[in-house]
Amino acid sequence: MIYLDNASTTLKKPLSVYFAVNKAMLKYNANAGRSGHSLSVKAGFEIYKARQEIAELFNASAENVIFTSGCTESLNLAIRGTVKQGGHIITSAYEHNSVLRVLKHLENEGKISFTIISPKKSGYFDLKDFEKAIKQNTYAIVVNHISNVLGIEQDIKGLGEIAKRHNLLFIVDTAQSAGHKNIDMQKLNISMLAFAGHKGLLGLSGVGGLVVNDKVQLQPIKFGGTGTSSEDINQPTTLPEAFESGTLPLVNIVSLRAGTNFVKKHFKKINSKIDYLTKYLIDNLTKMEHIILYTPQNSINGVVAFNVKNYSAGQVCDMLNEKYKICVRSGLTCAPYVHRFLGTINGGVIRVSIAHYNKKHQIDKLLSALKTLKE
Amino acid sequence: MIYLDNASTTLKKPLSVYFAVNKAMLKYNANAGRSGHSLSVKAGFEIYKARQEIAELFNASAENVIFTSGCTESLNLAIRGTVKQGGHIITSAYEHNSVLRVLKHLENEGKISFTIISPKKSGYFDLKDFEKAIKQNTYAIVVNHISNVLGIEQDIKGLGEIAKRHNLLFIVDTAQSAGHKNIDMQKLNISMLAFAGHKGLLGLSGVGGLVVNDKVQLQPIKFGGTGTSSEDINQPTTLPEAFESGTLPLVNIVSLRAGTNFVKKHFKKINSKIDYLTKYLIDNLTKMEHIILYTPQNSINGVVAFNVKNYSAGQVCDMLNEKYKICVRSGLTCAPYVHRFLGTINGGVIRVSIAHYNKKHQIDKLLSALKTLKE
Repeated sequence: MIYLDNASTTLKKPLSVYFAVNKAMLKYNANAGRSGHSLSVKAGFEIYKARQEIAELFNASAENVIFTSGCTESLNLAIRGTVKQGGHIITSAYEHNSVLRVLKHLENEGKISFTIISPKKSGYFDLKDFEKAIKQNTYAIVVNHISNVLGIEQDIKGLGEIAKRHNLLFIVDTAQSAGHKNIDMQKLNISMLAFAGHKGLLGLSGVGGLVVNDKVQLQPIKFGGTGTSSEDINQPTTLPEAFESGTLPLVNIVSLRAGTNFVKKHFKKINSKIDYLTKYLIDNLTKMEHIILYTPQNSINGVVAFNVKNYSAGQVCDMLNEKYKICVRSGLTCAPYVHRFLGTINGGVIRVSIAHYNKKHQIDKLLSALKTLKE
Repeated sequence: MIYLDNASTTLKKPLSVYFAVNKAMLKYNANAGRSGHSLSVKAGFEIYKARQEIAELFNASAENVIFTSGCTESLNLAIRGTVKQGGHIITSAYEHNSVLRVLKHLENEGKISFTIISPKKSGYFDLKDFEKAIKQNTYAIVVNHISNVLGIEQDIKGLGEIAKRHNLLFIVDTAQSAGHKNIDMQKLNISMLAFAGHKGLLGLSGVGGLVVNDKVQLQPIKFGGTGTSSEDINQPTTLPEAFESGTLPLVNIVSLRAGTNFVKKHFKKINSKIDYLTKYLIDNLTKMEHIILYTPQNSINGVVAFNVKNYSAGQVCDMLNEKYKICVRSGLTCAPYVHRFLGTINGGVIRVSIAHYNKKHQIDKLLSALKTLKE
């Protein structure tokens, strides 16, 4: 089995992740932050260490790390937790439905309007287009850092500067970049950073987070027990508990900590391997006349989108799976406006996404399989 | 270490739960319902089997089982996903903040009003009080099945009949009863049933669910990718995907399935053990003059609340933990109105909660420890 669907979920985790999960399950599987006994305190302490691990990765404070069920909930919280009645948000055509459907919902409710910025023919964005779209009631920019379809990196440094200049909230979806890019929230002027635990940070699915800048006035979108101020039936406002109602997913959080720790230790090695394999794949796909490559040749971020002439993306995906045991993803991958831009809204694309544990010979097997579709 | 905090989280899970988690992590840790390749299909199939397992437990259809991050999210979804502008909801004084804070939030937003029904001196409710509270704009009753503070069982059969008679939604929080009581959604007229995965169903924390009756018109409260209708940036409406935006917590869901399966197989044995130990504990506490017992003597549902004269609940909890390595919980346990009723709003109570793996000699040790506080 050759697994090349790592932008959905990284299949293999470091051994330290499996160990951490089993240790949590067997040694301190209590309810963190609820009781005062040793096991609950231990669970709470391990969760705090995970907060610190994540905070350090993005240059934030541990208290500003809110754990959620995943990047989707994080983006819901970021956008809906700062919604301004009558306001306007700017976003890009590369966004995932975890952003677009939230914006559309708020628009349907009559709360906000939003503008979707289109890329240039190159696939990259012109930052001036974002700046031109700013209206008097614009209060936020929401973009992903790396496109989950094309692997194209957004210029979040440039956008952060625009946001700062115009006093806008700057919300960044790092679902595909956390663990792959150095992201300093302070230097990049990021107001809120949403991340997934189960992709580049090598944890299990079931956890993600939102890292919040101190200046952001965030409102909760989920209400319930926080283990604090229990006598008050108004939701508390303290970071991070106010946004973490209910029992936290202990094993997922400890898996995230172990995964993030591994990524930090091997950051260069992991990402130079991914870059190398991405470049190798792109270079070889470019040489094949029956391949329509959508990812720009200079975009080497582990995610590569293409189609095979005369085949639907689904057909190719099925063939790769059934005949060669190669796992890739096909379709729209939850980001419809990219496909409007690419002209692939009907069948989508084939998306290959690479992790550090993939091997060159696996890419070779994929390339060989694709060659058989030449006729 | 003697763990008696099982109403927070059951500490020990069946071996089958640990095996299922490790199998999922090591064998098919892909993204369910997103890709078409074998590993994603396998993950999706395992999640479907968990849906079936839960559906069977509550006499529902698999498609009507919505997985959430926990019982708190389930209750948020149930209450906010059916909110009626200008409507009125009836609830009880025994509710957890996962219900009360949701209702208070909706009241603060000017959307609903709600009435909190108080128990009688016995600790039990008079169903007539619920019926009397019904107004013209009342559209829902929300209650827990077993109080997380007192262990008292609510008469959900009677309440279900009232709800049916008055055409009200009937929302039941089974956080403390799932796995312990037979709950047939159809027979009990339950419109929506919220459950936690990490308590009586013996799964890991990080998963829960909402089981929905076909007649309920539920609206999503979280928006994003569902792996379906991706071309449309309006949230889909199909059960269950429309309510499960984002990647599902695979290992948590397989743990829930294994745990639920174990509970079904050993239902009688598990619960007669819990009943026996609860009764044994209550009978002995009743004999101690320095104990103020809040749980009625005939309430043998694994949860027992009390205080020790001249000590705060926190002091006793700390002493049990430090001196005897006994883990119990103290405080309000996120249910403030119970404590207004008990007169314990300042320090709360000591809560002992029992699982099937607890032993009589552990209860004896607790009783001996409590005896030392007599003077």
